[in-house]
Amino acid sequence: MKKAMKKLFPLSKVYSLLEPGPVVLVSTARKGRANIMAMSWQTMIDFEPPIVGIVVSERNHSFGNLKATKQCVINIPTVELAAEVVGIGNTSGRKVDKFQKFHLTPMPGKLVDVPLIDECYANLECKVIDAKLATKYNFFILEVVKAWIDPAKKHPRTIHHLGSGVFMVAGKTIKLASTKK
Amino acid sequence: MKKAMKKLFPLSKVYSLLEPGPVVLVSTARKGRANIMAMSWQTMIDFEPPIVGIVVSERNHSFGNLKATKQCVINIPTVELAAEVVGIGNTSGRKVDKFQKFHLTPMPGKLVDVPLIDECYANLECKVIDAKLATKYNFFILEVVKAWIDPAKKHPRTIHHLGSGVFMVAGKTIKLASTKK
Repeated sequence: MKKAMKKLFPLSKVYSLLEPGPVVLVSTARKGRANIMAMSWQTMIDFEPPIVGIVVSERNHSFGNLKATKQCVINIPTVELAAEVVGIGNTSGRKVDKFQKFHLTPMPGKLVDVPLIDECYANLECKVIDAKLATKYNFFILEVVKAWIDPAKKHPRTIHHLGSGVFMVAGKTIKLASTKK
Repeated sequence: MKKAMKKLFPLSKVYSLLEPGPVVLVSTARKGRANIMAMSWQTMIDFEPPIVGIVVSERNHSFGNLKATKQCVINIPTVELAAEVVGIGNTSGRKVDKFQKFHLTPMPGKLVDVPLIDECYANLECKVIDAKLATKYNFFILEVVKAWIDPAKKHPRTIHHLGSGVFMVAGKTIKLASTKK
């Protein structure tokens, strides 16, 4: 896949990337070893600074990385990466280097020691700010501290999981008169 | 809009309705007065029983209803209701009866004292099971106790908020070999 020059994305607009509910790829790293998981269980919690809630099961290898390092990157893929997304979801990071296996390019984070996935059209560098519900609900609260986007992707065709390997691909957009964010 | 006979939807499959990230309409009721809010800040937390996290700002009239009654219904609209969704998002329930204003049909819940919105293709009756993070993050944890769906809508064209009144309409679906839920 052709690489793009990412540019900084305003933190005040991060909600517009996560609100529509795309499948995301969460990268983590611990002791020099990176991992990636596929995820659809995330929600915005506040606009600015952007606060995000994510659910990471303790069965995932990423759970330990997240608890130990309190850092991750939320990478947003488009439909061109659908096969990789499913492959990543079906593979455990305990045994496999997923960057290598799925031919993804790690890029260094600016504010986190976690690689960004270059092939994704947006990357959100995150720090865990609250893990109170991590034990009971696997729920982590993150602050997005830096956001990057590929400015060439005006209409990113994100994918949205409908269960059992079926994905809805982002369709056309409509504009309605809203007086709110 | 033509009314449909809803049928029960298995609780184990509720995740497939919320994972793709649709805009939803949350109904609440208190002292015989119902309200509706539009929302995109929700996440699945567990599969079965289905546990869902939602963010409801204390600036919303629904926040008080939810705190007091610990009940709500998550109604999932399709693109045919887009104008109503935006209208509901732009209106405060403090002064307006939104069922009446937007010509929506309230249907009684089975396990909650909150009306379902008949025009929505799916309705999830919910009880608040944890409000520990409601004060700090406006975050409520719900259990879906009953779910209804319109069996005629095989490919519901849900809408997904991209910010500032722009919505992505659910596009085509693709199937990939997943070994997981």
